[in-house]
Amino acid sequence: MRVLDRGDQLRKELEAARAAGATVGLVPTMGYLHRGHGALVRRSVAENDLTAVTVFVNPLQFGPAEDLAAYPRDLARDVEVATRAGAGLVFAPPVEDMYPAGPPGVTVHVAGADDLEGASRPGHFDGVATVVAKLFNLAGPCRAYFGEKDWQQLGVVRRLAADLSFPVEVVGCATVREADGLACSSRNSYLSPAERQAATVLYRALSTAALAASAGECDPANIRRLMVNIVAKEPLATLDYAEVRPDRLLLAVRIGTVRLIDNLGA
Amino acid sequence: MRVLDRGDQLRKELEAARAAGATVGLVPTMGYLHRGHGALVRRSVAENDLTAVTVFVNPLQFGPAEDLAAYPRDLARDVEVATRAGAGLVFAPPVEDMYPAGPPGVTVHVAGADDLEGASRPGHFDGVATVVAKLFNLAGPCRAYFGEKDWQQLGVVRRLAADLSFPVEVVGCATVREADGLACSSRNSYLSPAERQAATVLYRALSTAALAASAGECDPANIRRLMVNIVAKEPLATLDYAEVRPDRLLLAVRIGTVRLIDNLGA
Repeated sequence: MRVLDRGDQLRKELEAARAAGATVGLVPTMGYLHRGHGALVRRSVAENDLTAVTVFVNPLQFGPAEDLAAYPRDLARDVEVATRAGAGLVFAPPVEDMYPAGPPGVTVHVAGADDLEGASRPGHFDGVATVVAKLFNLAGPCRAYFGEKDWQQLGVVRRLAADLSFPVEVVGCATVREADGLACSSRNSYLSPAERQAATVLYRALSTAALAASAGECDPANIRRLMVNIVAKEPLATLDYAEVRPDRLLLAVRIGTVRLIDNLGA
Repeated sequence: MRVLDRGDQLRKELEAARAAGATVGLVPTMGYLHRGHGALVRRSVAENDLTAVTVFVNPLQFGPAEDLAAYPRDLARDVEVATRAGAGLVFAPPVEDMYPAGPPGVTVHVAGADDLEGASRPGHFDGVATVVAKLFNLAGPCRAYFGEKDWQQLGVVRRLAADLSFPVEVVGCATVREADGLACSSRNSYLSPAERQAATVLYRALSTAALAASAGECDPANIRRLMVNIVAKEPLATLDYAEVRPDRLLLAVRIGTVRLIDNLGA
């Protein structure tokens, strides 16, 4: 396992690998890897000759009142998890390597990303699209793996790659869950034991609504109300949004001060 | 000479060339090639094994009241000019290949490009940055050649490449001028004979101001006034802006209905 901290090293390593005939898989993460990330890495390892995991807590995608400083970090463990999952490289640049002159003077904006997460977190998807564009440019031609837990992000990244013709195939991967349904997330580490228990409300609300939809309920307002009511019954939970989109139910809920998102096919 | 009209063809051709050890030069243009473009192509041919000239009148960088429909086009002649200058490929995609679903859902914005051309042409540089990002992604690792006549555009493209880590070396090339100093531009073809005569006012104003600066005049307001007064004396000319920036004098002038820009080191 090699750990790189400079973008030009990553570029050179992956160029050399491709020149030698290898295919490249890229798994962009903010680190603090959990089983969901592990599944992305294993999928990439299965489909490509060399997998690079990037670990970068991207300041651009955090709002001023968000948890950038508190975001959990543990590079040593991330390297271990990536290694065990079969990755060949970890790229973990300091902020100064990615943005040497402060916030970049170039912003990538994806249309239609201003609702849901985009509405609750203004500028969030500009920050995501900008850092992903930069990572794609450093990595070069590859397959890139993103989890469906961040459903809207997956759409943003797909559109970014398609509309700007990046030489990247974006691969969406199913959400990995704990035994009780809670979607794996680095932010789960913030939860107290009581909050951890309460956090199951997201999956309970989503799966109940999905069941109702598959049983024939086709009024989005009714499906949404089901989710809203289930979240309302959980004392530690505060709803941010509950949305019914074509084929997808989406939920953002605060458990105490921890904001969690999840989604399910409908 | 091969003429390609699909982005995936361009990508494949240039990938194959690089795989065979060739270096690639890219000359992005809006076509109707003049001697200025010819100089870009020859510079690229001198510095790279394979030069690709792109010919695409990019709708994104034209305002609603601008000359998109009237913009001069002559692909047959462009291919001839590119061939004579030593290019190996011309990429001339239809709008439907570049933007198959209409205007792209992704916009690239470069900070600090909202004055001068950016102020006179709102959205212009977003359109430039977006199409250049897409062309860079289709072309892959290369050197890319841009003329200094579009001074601000050169800055935008340099910043785009650097801040998003495109695998592209941006090369700026000196402005090519007619014998009387008028900067070569596809838009010169709009000028009537009388307007063509009047259009020399840009270079006259710039070179007089540059001379004053090199003779010791160091008050930007005085240098600017020199340019403004010279333009004012030309009956067919209307000043859009005259600016003195560190080391650079910039001018935008309407000659009749034709808007021309030029600049000179100070």
